[in-house]
Amino acid sequence: MSAEGCPACTGEWPARAHRILDCGTSVAYLHDDQFFPGWSVLVLKRHATELWQLAPAERSALMDELTRVAQALAAGFDAVKMNYELLGNQVAHIHWHLIPRRADDPAPRVPAWTVAHEPRRLAPAEMAERVARIRARLGA
Amino acid sequence: MSAEGCPACTGEWPARAHRILDCGTSVAYLHDDQFFPGWSVLVLKRHATELWQLAPAERSALMDELTRVAQALAAGFDAVKMNYELLGNQVAHIHWHLIPRRADDPAPRVPAWTVAHEPRRLAPAEMAERVARIRARLGA
Repeated sequence: MSAEGCPACTGEWPARAHRILDCGTSVAYLHDDQFFPGWSVLVLKRHATELWQLAPAERSALMDELTRVAQALAAGFDAVKMNYELLGNQVAHIHWHLIPRRADDPAPRVPAWTVAHEPRRLAPAEMAERVARIRARLGA
Repeated sequence: MSAEGCPACTGEWPARAHRILDCGTSVAYLHDDQFFPGWSVLVLKRHATELWQLAPAERSALMDELTRVAQALAAGFDAVKMNYELLGNQVAHIHWHLIPRRADDPAPRVPAWTVAHEPRRLAPAEMAERVARIRARLGA
């Protein structure tokens, strides 16, 4: 996938209302589906598809941003474990899924993707509240 | 999970015969199940469970190692896309899953975990050959 037609580059995805914070090389967004509370995505600002396409300093900065957001989500949503995933099977623009796995997780031993569930879409006000809460946790 | 009783710390897991390379802060192993050819895991040498428990330089080194192995696997197994996953839902010792997704992937748009299949265990000679091939690709 090239930058042209990439939904992360055109601004089509993720939804602007889900935007948490500009982290530097990346922007954090709350994921559409909040069945796993706090599930977020960290999207690289520029178009690249694989980690080796980044310069070492850029990769290091991205990973520091990922770590910072992961720690804030873990604290904010009482995660027992964080899951970090860079897949790009549908949108091949570097974006990390950050999934807090809590003590009340319905299937704590398996990847979130294998847990059958109805997507949980938040109402706009609830989405905005959650975004603001994470932003505050990030000191932003 | 503490270091005590951790299968990655006791040497119980991954299997020694699957060992590809000591990368520095981590060791690369071929995954048991080779249904997705080249699926490997990169295991941190010391016990830690989350990225924020690593010093920035250590995290950066780990990510450089992950990137190097990912690129070698992508080239060696003709990946269209690499998947990078740090989960720890079962073994909460930092280890990355690296999954080459090839053009002949049975379900290229979804995470590997959701693709129902019989695990493909290689015979010892085939496992050794594959390990050696990746090692050579890494210039080791």
